[in-house]
Amino acid sequence: MSTDRLSRQIAFIVEADKLKAIERRTPLTDNSRQENSAEHSWHMALAAMTLAEYAPAAVDLRRVLELVTVHDLVEIYAGDTFAYDPNASAHASKAQRERDAAERLFGMLPADQAVYFRECWDEFEAAATREARYANALDRFQALLLNMSSGGGSWKTHHVKREDVLRRMAPVERETPELWPFVVDVVERFFGGRTL
Amino acid sequence: MSTDRLSRQIAFIVEADKLKAIERRTPLTDNSRQENSAEHSWHMALAAMTLAEYAPAAVDLRRVLELVTVHDLVEIYAGDTFAYDPNASAHASKAQRERDAAERLFGMLPADQAVYFRECWDEFEAAATREARYANALDRFQALLLNMSSGGGSWKTHHVKREDVLRRMAPVERETPELWPFVVDVVERFFGGRTL
Repeated sequence: MSTDRLSRQIAFIVEADKLKAIERRTPLTDNSRQENSAEHSWHMALAAMTLAEYAPAAVDLRRVLELVTVHDLVEIYAGDTFAYDPNASAHASKAQRERDAAERLFGMLPADQAVYFRECWDEFEAAATREARYANALDRFQALLLNMSSGGGSWKTHHVKREDVLRRMAPVERETPELWPFVVDVVERFFGGRTL
Repeated sequence: MSTDRLSRQIAFIVEADKLKAIERRTPLTDNSRQENSAEHSWHMALAAMTLAEYAPAAVDLRRVLELVTVHDLVEIYAGDTFAYDPNASAHASKAQRERDAAERLFGMLPADQAVYFRECWDEFEAAATREARYANALDRFQALLLNMSSGGGSWKTHHVKREDVLRRMAPVERETPELWPFVVDVVERFFGGRTL
């Protein structure tokens, strides 16, 4: 072990602490505050374990857990872009901001590990492998559970439309179809003005 | 898929959201607030990935990630017991409180999954497998990084003694010996009154 190698690894872990300060638009279930991206990532890992039987066939849970742990790290520098932001320029600049952030953050690590973490993030973003597709579906589904439990959450606060929620939830229908009737029921109750 | 099965799984994921409200004694690196147990669990997962080369030989990273995701969940009902609490009765009652919490929380799940999550938690607690021993070392090491980065953190606030920190860090020496010189250096700097 080189001391420089360990120093870089420790600096990366310490820097990653900043993800706990990145606020999402989704509130906690008790509406006490907004969720942050670090605890959201943990909650996705727990959901990945709990809902594994609905994942695409032969999904590798280890890879899913790696992807969810890494998927939001770039927000430390790039910030969280609200999924329902009506401002198109926020989404247009998102990809470049996040790629720059990935260079900077993963570049703190020894070269072999910079590649490993970058591959995790790229894989999640591309949503091409079954593990990344499942992780993306969980990202949407976990947010739905918080919005449901907090009486509407970010849908209510930001006046999101029914069709935008359903479009956002499309990966759930595609990757974890057994969860889809539940999603539709939650959306219909909320937009039908019934109790969630 | 039975609707009842999915309902129980969803109720469990929603209930687990409460871990985000369980405060630890350790502050974030910028000292802005105390860390919560959900984001701590995520940070341990990231550390598990980053420091894997120092883990006991042939450690199964998938199992490590499962263990760290589950290891603090019982605190939802049992609360966080401060590692350096001088009150012996807090530690004496901890085991029973946490076992009761595990029954209650994992009992929300379908029976097969109650067993799976309970086994994760028991495995972490027993620290008998190499995965659980690595996870326990990470639990200590991650707290050291936060205390180091925040200028002393819970060691300073609670006037913890040098020998108590070293005793608490013993799993790091035992399971990840290559990290031990770094731990000793941090402890010597802090207790020697030098800059961390």
